[in-house]
Amino acid sequence: MANKNWILMVTAQTPTNIAVIKYWGKRDETLILPINDSISVTLDPEHLCTTTTVAVSPSFESDKMWLNGKEISLSGGRYQSCLREIRRRANDVEDEEKGISIKKQDWDNLKVHIASFNNFPTAAGLASSAAGFACLVYSLAKLMNVKEEQGKLSAIARQGSGSACRSLFGGFVKWIMGKEANGSDSMAVQLATETHWDDLVIIIAVVSSRQKETSSTSGMRESVETSPLLHYRSKEVVPKRILQMEEAIKTRDFPSFAKLTCTDSNQFHAVCLDTSPPIFYMNDTSHRIISYMEKWNRSQGTPQVAYTFDAGPNAVLIAPNRKVATLLLQRLLFYFPPSADTDLSSFVIGDKSLLKDAGINAMDDVEALTPPPEVQDNIPSQKSKGDVSYFICTRPGKGPVLFADDSQALLHPETGLPK
Amino acid sequence: MANKNWILMVTAQTPTNIAVIKYWGKRDETLILPINDSISVTLDPEHLCTTTTVAVSPSFESDKMWLNGKEISLSGGRYQSCLREIRRRANDVEDEEKGISIKKQDWDNLKVHIASFNNFPTAAGLASSAAGFACLVYSLAKLMNVKEEQGKLSAIARQGSGSACRSLFGGFVKWIMGKEANGSDSMAVQLATETHWDDLVIIIAVVSSRQKETSSTSGMRESVETSPLLHYRSKEVVPKRILQMEEAIKTRDFPSFAKLTCTDSNQFHAVCLDTSPPIFYMNDTSHRIISYMEKWNRSQGTPQVAYTFDAGPNAVLIAPNRKVATLLLQRLLFYFPPSADTDLSSFVIGDKSLLKDAGINAMDDVEALTPPPEVQDNIPSQKSKGDVSYFICTRPGKGPVLFADDSQALLHPETGLPK
Repeated sequence: MANKNWILMVTAQTPTNIAVIKYWGKRDETLILPINDSISVTLDPEHLCTTTTVAVSPSFESDKMWLNGKEISLSGGRYQSCLREIRRRANDVEDEEKGISIKKQDWDNLKVHIASFNNFPTAAGLASSAAGFACLVYSLAKLMNVKEEQGKLSAIARQGSGSACRSLFGGFVKWIMGKEANGSDSMAVQLATETHWDDLVIIIAVVSSRQKETSSTSGMRESVETSPLLHYRSKEVVPKRILQMEEAIKTRDFPSFAKLTCTDSNQFHAVCLDTSPPIFYMNDTSHRIISYMEKWNRSQGTPQVAYTFDAGPNAVLIAPNRKVATLLLQRLLFYFPPSADTDLSSFVIGDKSLLKDAGINAMDDVEALTPPPEVQDNIPSQKSKGDVSYFICTRPGKGPVLFADDSQALLHPETGLPK
Repeated sequence: MANKNWILMVTAQTPTNIAVIKYWGKRDETLILPINDSISVTLDPEHLCTTTTVAVSPSFESDKMWLNGKEISLSGGRYQSCLREIRRRANDVEDEEKGISIKKQDWDNLKVHIASFNNFPTAAGLASSAAGFACLVYSLAKLMNVKEEQGKLSAIARQGSGSACRSLFGGFVKWIMGKEANGSDSMAVQLATETHWDDLVIIIAVVSSRQKETSSTSGMRESVETSPLLHYRSKEVVPKRILQMEEAIKTRDFPSFAKLTCTDSNQFHAVCLDTSPPIFYMNDTSHRIISYMEKWNRSQGTPQVAYTFDAGPNAVLIAPNRKVATLLLQRLLFYFPPSADTDLSSFVIGDKSLLKDAGINAMDDVEALTPPPEVQDNIPSQKSKGDVSYFICTRPGKGPVLFADDSQALLHPETGLPK
């Protein structure tokens, strides 16, 4: 380490995830240990992911981080936990090409620069912290040659943001709550890869809201402290649902999967309402989405679509296959057309091929949509233009990936500052 | 009974009531037996009541009923239960003045005419069925000289509409769920009269809604069948709250009363959300009312106001005294001003003297209202004119009353038809 001018970098990409059996409530606030297991679907990073570059250099004077180009403080306990836990597991690193040699004990004194970028609007309430902390931990682990398996890394990411642990794997993931006081067994495991059930199609409705939302951190703390129903949920209801959901995923049983997903989302929001003061994450638009989906499901006698809502008004809708997803997109555009000043290409983003399948090539096609059969006797009196800001079409996706070269790095290879 | 032209009439008035510990869920659908006790406050019949005239005559050919001037069918099981149970308990009636003598056994063959009128809009979702069935049973019992005490009558009214049993008493009322399979011990008892705690002031916000609501009958059936949380609520949570609420009422402990009222309303709505498919009675306006009240309560360190919502979006707000009620009305008018085409006299109804206390004599005074201190750093960006249709100012009130003469009767004394 005689030459102080070298910079070593790693760039990785990590997906976000949506819980289908919800995490709500911690038994340990600092270690972020949950009061029940949870299960999630990892979302395709092509449409929703975080990219993070971590760099180390003897010339760096302090740990620094930039999120979406803006410097943010790393002083928070959650960042510090992740940095400390990864540094503690660092190993020797040799880069013969660049002539860099870092010894295990050097890591304590070396500072890192971190740049992170979300390929989706952070303001949309799409759980960017899950992908963010997963990517931070994953990329730091690669940089520092940490040899722990993915599950152990997930237990570190968990200390940044609980749901981040589930973003360390693709496909279908369970966060096991664990029993140890030190949290060592509270980690994610993969239930099935994304290829196990690759028919599923996911459409996210980003719902407009003028309400400021309660953060999930303070919200779940208040629920633990005040909701009598939460404790019954975590002890009596969730354990059974976890087993049922594992079975539904294993057997690709969409009706069971959908029923469990919807009822668990609703129960999570019920617990929020049972909190003092009550927490409302869903709004009238969210309620209308649920009502339309329930009506469609009932009219067919079997679930066509599953819905789930996290700590905000956005709906995540899961269809069993492309054919049903096309019908779903038609319904969504019929009920929630864009406001006058929005163009179609920014109103439906992600996998736009679904638009074509739905026969929608221009705004005129949206306006020409006819009411779905299940509402033909009772057509909604008022279409609410602009109640949904936009839709993201996606699917279950893979876990973290490391980029082989530095061309996609977010930090400059010579200055270690954001590009 | 030789002369067939006589008509004997009774007119009575019965209040509506608002539950502060909620009734949600039946263990017997036909007898209307609940899964938990509930407690309510009877509302002043001056502002919210049902008036019912029942008449009997040998000239009547069938049982008939008119509600708000329109004939309705009595064939439903609930009307039939009330009529049957009252007839079964009928006694001899003598009216010397009119020369009428009815023997106990005659009642089986005599037909009745019933006319009922609500002094508040039925479409407003203000539980008109509670006052309605209470008044039906009470007036029929008077007409037929039924000698059962009020509690026994409440058990009959219960078979018309569960919450009707609580409208047989003024003040503060408990509906004891009972244990008997035949429902004989499932009845209302008075916890305290309306004079026991006569400082309380109640303001009802009638919230505009474009959603069609789930009826409470089908809603609670679906909750019983599908909500895992409801059973925990009824068995573990409500019994404790009933004891605490009885104590709060007994000692006029407003902070406890308010806390229990709010948390129980929220838990009832939580259980609705935990139902499959989920039931939403509150809308964004309801949520905003709660948020404003919670913010006010927190800013003062002790509850200023209690809120509770039944099976609809309307808020029932309870203030400990007139002074706080004045502050409450100012806040409500600040947050929810009327739409442009509404005049003040139809926007605030009931006890209008509260308006004067609040210094509001004209629309200009509403527009001149300044933000409450608790929001001065964070004034709502958008006032939503018309989100509340109107406010009703009222208070706890008395139980059923019988009108001494027929001047207020709704049926014509000679024809037995609606006036």
